[in-house]
Amino acid sequence: MECYFDNSATTRCYESVKDIVVKTMTEDFGNPSAMHQKGVEAEQYIKKATASLAALLKVNEKEILYTSGGTESDNLALIGGAYANRRAGQHILVSAIEHPAVMEPAMFLREQGFDVEFIPVDSRGVVQPEVFAGMAREDTILASVMYVNNETGSVQPAADLGRILHKKAPGALFHVDAVQGFGKYRIHPGKQGIDLMSVSGHKLHGPKGVGFLYIRNGAKVIPQILGGGQQKGMRSGTDNVPGIAGLGAAAEEIYSRLDANTEHLLKLRRRMTDGLLAMPDVTINGMPQGEGAPHIISVTFQGIRSEVLLHALEEKEIYISAGSACSSHKRKKSAVLTAMGLSAADIESTVRISFSEENTEEEVDFCLQTLGTLVPVLRRYSRR
Amino acid sequence: MECYFDNSATTRCYESVKDIVVKTMTEDFGNPSAMHQKGVEAEQYIKKATASLAALLKVNEKEILYTSGGTESDNLALIGGAYANRRAGQHILVSAIEHPAVMEPAMFLREQGFDVEFIPVDSRGVVQPEVFAGMAREDTILASVMYVNNETGSVQPAADLGRILHKKAPGALFHVDAVQGFGKYRIHPGKQGIDLMSVSGHKLHGPKGVGFLYIRNGAKVIPQILGGGQQKGMRSGTDNVPGIAGLGAAAEEIYSRLDANTEHLLKLRRRMTDGLLAMPDVTINGMPQGEGAPHIISVTFQGIRSEVLLHALEEKEIYISAGSACSSHKRKKSAVLTAMGLSAADIESTVRISFSEENTEEEVDFCLQTLGTLVPVLRRYSRR
Repeated sequence: MECYFDNSATTRCYESVKDIVVKTMTEDFGNPSAMHQKGVEAEQYIKKATASLAALLKVNEKEILYTSGGTESDNLALIGGAYANRRAGQHILVSAIEHPAVMEPAMFLREQGFDVEFIPVDSRGVVQPEVFAGMAREDTILASVMYVNNETGSVQPAADLGRILHKKAPGALFHVDAVQGFGKYRIHPGKQGIDLMSVSGHKLHGPKGVGFLYIRNGAKVIPQILGGGQQKGMRSGTDNVPGIAGLGAAAEEIYSRLDANTEHLLKLRRRMTDGLLAMPDVTINGMPQGEGAPHIISVTFQGIRSEVLLHALEEKEIYISAGSACSSHKRKKSAVLTAMGLSAADIESTVRISFSEENTEEEVDFCLQTLGTLVPVLRRYSRR
Repeated sequence: MECYFDNSATTRCYESVKDIVVKTMTEDFGNPSAMHQKGVEAEQYIKKATASLAALLKVNEKEILYTSGGTESDNLALIGGAYANRRAGQHILVSAIEHPAVMEPAMFLREQGFDVEFIPVDSRGVVQPEVFAGMAREDTILASVMYVNNETGSVQPAADLGRILHKKAPGALFHVDAVQGFGKYRIHPGKQGIDLMSVSGHKLHGPKGVGFLYIRNGAKVIPQILGGGQQKGMRSGTDNVPGIAGLGAAAEEIYSRLDANTEHLLKLRRRMTDGLLAMPDVTINGMPQGEGAPHIISVTFQGIRSEVLLHALEEKEIYISAGSACSSHKRKKSAVLTAMGLSAADIESTVRISFSEENTEEEVDFCLQTLGTLVPVLRRYSRR
């Protein structure tokens, strides 16, 4: 039984996504910048996607800017946001558990002279509003805190943080990397005080190579990719019609059954967590049952190196992740788990299991059963 | 009879491209950064595409960097190339007929204090090597001249320019935007002195939202999108496997029949050009028959506004372009035609016809016949 439990790394595309991608690649394949009918036809796909996304987020269609994915969105938010607002100040706050797509731009900004501070998290991997309140300043121009952490599933109190930030610094931009949160939660940036929000297509059964940045009307961001002036000059380059149409279709489909999905994912998570905690020397990291994201489990198998477990499971066609998988084979010690206070030994023994709606309880049982056999054997080997 | 003659704006995807995109979206959909088999499988698609592209260009596989398309490639080459080499000088040369994806980054660099000069072209739209030689300096750090112009099909003497540049400034980067040239010509950057070369997928029957930048081994470019460290840190973000695989498949297919394609395109071009020149008050811009690119015709119908002609043809299902179509509905006067010395009136009356291998002689005849009827009528209206 194949168990793909690495859905936070990437997901299988929905059939509906495949269909619209094929249609826009082979039939309605025009360039939306063209003035003739083929261009207008192609543009309709973008308009439809934008209408869907805007409705889901309860935002204006003009507030959606398409990009090549979550990483480009994060770069644009951080670098474009910081430079657009540097006259108001130099202070930037970034949570200690951000994805490298936020962390690396933040380090770049620090090199460029911005005053970048990292917000610590508690042992559950959550930014504490009072800690954030103590760090936000009048000259803060940008704060970036993700919606759901990609390694542990910890959910951040976005609305609280947005409120605190804007009270201290009304003009500051609150950026939320919602790459793991969009498609799992109903997110309404307007209500939650979010000024900028990054989303990626391929985490929600949409295409790779496409995403968007929500930019609140009035929020200033300097474009990073210049050229033909597409998307009102904010992001040049021929619009990726199949990608955008696919992203729209994926969002529509995933939100059409959000409650059922959430229930299903929580059931899988509970079943897996209960099974894991019944094993000796196993701990679950992050938020307790019922608080964290429904699709991510961070689990430490004491005494077993994560890669060893990953490859042993792989032989049984069970696919999980050691770390976040977003960091291109890097073996760096997880900054997220470090920030949460895990020991180096525990970090080395931590894996991530991440579900999608396509997973089943049978798969969970098969995985637990396989782990029940493998774990004692691997521990014996590692103790020699 | 539908005649899609706007192939320089974008092309229909090949069946082979569609097939591999579908396969990597729905079956082999893993994240290449994942350590397990699903990741390794996905990575194989990238390796295969890279091997194909490197073989076609006769370059090393490590010299191919994937991007979200031609515009991102151009931005990376210009901005990343300029900043990586600014210790060697501030002087940058850019041809007057570049695409906005080069022009806009060049203007940005000028604002940042770089000394950017524009290289004029002759009446055929070609950079003259002696003019270029007079402008290149010891402190030139970057020169950007496109391979084939997107509005007129004029072909630039890349190899000559590369040689001249490197003689004057051995460390300078020679960037070539080959978005309209790759897939039409056998381009070997090593032999032609090209250090950086931009390519887009959707101009050669590949997917939108993907392209690459050839970066000669040793050429320094500062990455513009930071994050998980994919592609050796040069361009972060989850690899767009379907896009990259599709781009590789498109390149393989188009080059497998390059000579036959070229012959076919030249036949279409000759037939169309002969027919057009038989009409009164029609001129062809750019290089003469047999010298320009085989797929692009820039044609001026004196006394008829290009948009009027475009929409009249559209009603007969003939799709052409007024200007380059890459500039998102903008009605700015073509900088390319201006640089070639056309009058404002002629520029307003110029359209582009661009072929792909999928076009037929019947379509050309139908278009000529339609024009034969339409043009006198439109001229009568416009004279009133």
